[in-house]
Amino acid sequence: MSKTSSSSLPPALQQRGFSDLGDAQEALQREADQLRQSASLLEDFNLEELAILGAAMRRITAQSGQILIEEGEAGDWMLLILQGTVDVTKRIMQHDTAGQPTTSLLEVSRLAVVRAGASLGEMSMLDSELRNATCTAIDAVEIAILTRAAIGRLIAQHPAVGAKLLIKITQLLAQRLRNTSAQLVKAVVEGKQRQLFKP
Amino acid sequence: MSKTSSSSLPPALQQRGFSDLGDAQEALQREADQLRQSASLLEDFNLEELAILGAAMRRITAQSGQILIEEGEAGDWMLLILQGTVDVTKRIMQHDTAGQPTTSLLEVSRLAVVRAGASLGEMSMLDSELRNATCTAIDAVEIAILTRAAIGRLIAQHPAVGAKLLIKITQLLAQRLRNTSAQLVKAVVEGKQRQLFKP
Repeated sequence: MSKTSSSSLPPALQQRGFSDLGDAQEALQREADQLRQSASLLEDFNLEELAILGAAMRRITAQSGQILIEEGEAGDWMLLILQGTVDVTKRIMQHDTAGQPTTSLLEVSRLAVVRAGASLGEMSMLDSELRNATCTAIDAVEIAILTRAAIGRLIAQHPAVGAKLLIKITQLLAQRLRNTSAQLVKAVVEGKQRQLFKP
Repeated sequence: MSKTSSSSLPPALQQRGFSDLGDAQEALQREADQLRQSASLLEDFNLEELAILGAAMRRITAQSGQILIEEGEAGDWMLLILQGTVDVTKRIMQHDTAGQPTTSLLEVSRLAVVRAGASLGEMSMLDSELRNATCTAIDAVEIAILTRAAIGRLIAQHPAVGAKLLIKITQLLAQRLRNTSAQLVKAVVEGKQRQLFKP
């Protein structure tokens, strides 16, 4: 018998038919080894902190091909992969002569394939901007959801755990920003060098 | 008479001869209007929260041409511009045929000119990676410094103010990451379109 209420899940997930499987406390403790691996959002979290965080999160499962996050949609929540693999893709549009994106698709670009321990959607959780990429389950996936409202309650009730999570999110974003900036510099420099040295 | 001790300032600032002018509590309250303008790190801070944050920061002044942050150096602190204007520049190196940066300078690129209310250096404060750009005073500048140690104490003593600052830093980084990603997509698409459509 399926649960009839899933009101604790974000609207986008309810609309896609996901069921709220309760809080993620047990699941985060069960997957503690995965979640505390190096470079994961929760690498510095002890079991007690994982229990506090897990109690603030909701758990869902998804099958291969199900969309978790869709590029361009609204959503003030993030997800943490507990089991399985997720594809992260972005629609790259053709640009017009003024350098502005058009509505013609150039290609669907794979940004990453991410596994248990990885987190996705942190930016929209905190600034409520539209999603920048699409995240699709590649195989059977178990996921914990953290909404903006839940992180607000977490900070109020467990400020040390909330601050720890925020610092880690900021560090992850800083790392991504450094990588993206380096790629941008490379792309721009290569463009310039091509123009400088073209026959 | 100048102060003889500036031990509360980060080493890089001490080495450049900056004097510690005390905490930044009064200065943040004096510049509250500037600091609370839209898109500033402190736009949502009330006077009481500014007082708490200012007590955790150190104040310095700089003259035109003085370097505040130097690309490539270590530094686990950020700065907030209280008065004046700061130039943000990055050394762009030539890349070799394998796409790796060489030691030959291609150009010094101006990333931004920022004014009172702006913050700089948040990433290194939180992840201790090397500075990504150089920040130089354009005119007479007054600045408040926040170290990583100070933000740790702030979170312990005033968790609500600490969390508010961390959320704002994350939102600023997310916005920069979105902008940089969009620029990267544009640069890559333009490169591809040039190759696709070249005569």
